[in-house]
Amino acid sequence: MVTMHGPIQNTYPDEYAHCYGCGRNNLEGHRIETYANGAGTVTMHHPSPAYTGATTDHAYGGLIASLIDCHSAGSAAIFWMVTNRLEIGHDPTPRFVTARLEVDYLAPTPLAPMRISGTLEEMGDRKVIVSSELAVAGEVTARGRAVMVRI
Amino acid sequence: MVTMHGPIQNTYPDEYAHCYGCGRNNLEGHRIETYANGAGTVTMHHPSPAYTGATTDHAYGGLIASLIDCHSAGSAAIFWMVTNRLEIGHDPTPRFVTARLEVDYLAPTPLAPMRISGTLEEMGDRKVIVSSELAVAGEVTARGRAVMVRI
Repeated sequence: MVTMHGPIQNTYPDEYAHCYGCGRNNLEGHRIETYANGAGTVTMHHPSPAYTGATTDHAYGGLIASLIDCHSAGSAAIFWMVTNRLEIGHDPTPRFVTARLEVDYLAPTPLAPMRISGTLEEMGDRKVIVSSELAVAGEVTARGRAVMVRI
Repeated sequence: MVTMHGPIQNTYPDEYAHCYGCGRNNLEGHRIETYANGAGTVTMHHPSPAYTGATTDHAYGGLIASLIDCHSAGSAAIFWMVTNRLEIGHDPTPRFVTARLEVDYLAPTPLAPMRISGTLEEMGDRKVIVSSELAVAGEVTARGRAVMVRI
């Protein structure tokens, strides 16, 4: 078990906390929050009503890609710190950027609270690969895979 | 040469024009505009200052994925209509949704005007695959590939 007293995004260095998706210093953005969850990670997100897809009852595919992207960056930091026996919230948090993002849209995603879970697929010194599932009300509607690189 | 009197998004059916990325009926969104350009397609986008990445001088990876996604939907519609000898702006425009999105981030993308070009990789009756390049000031910083499905 990993103890976290807040989301990993709260521990990003200030100069790397401006991302529209996950930067706590970007007040216009999504400010997603990612936590360790057993051997994996989890991000919950309540989309704003503007983020509609083609029709008004579904979520915008770009939002789904964005959430998976930023959730993967946070997950990579958590997995990397756990692997390297660092203490989250105490030791410096590494910041990861995306080298490659893949999203499979399995079904239309309702514009409703979303749960994104992350699992570690591969761990390197600089490269971490994270697999994700996005679900609404328990139904998985999208799967992601992100190759993240430590900066 | 394809003659277009406005972006393909202006010809989407009203009920499918709510997308945050490319719906002309979503006044809070990006409202991207995609045109035929020779044998390919092109979308220009001026990002708002809020769409920063980890640092304030670079664009958010989720924005890049979003733009490539919506540009691919518009490009698929253009390619499909041209292939089927339909007249853009006169015949009904088909609406495509994303089945799979892949983005390779080659270099950090400055938060500056972006040009996204699209080429047709594969054409089917319902499935269209679009390859894209996103460039700022002539430098390609991301490549995309999207599997689009006609609804």
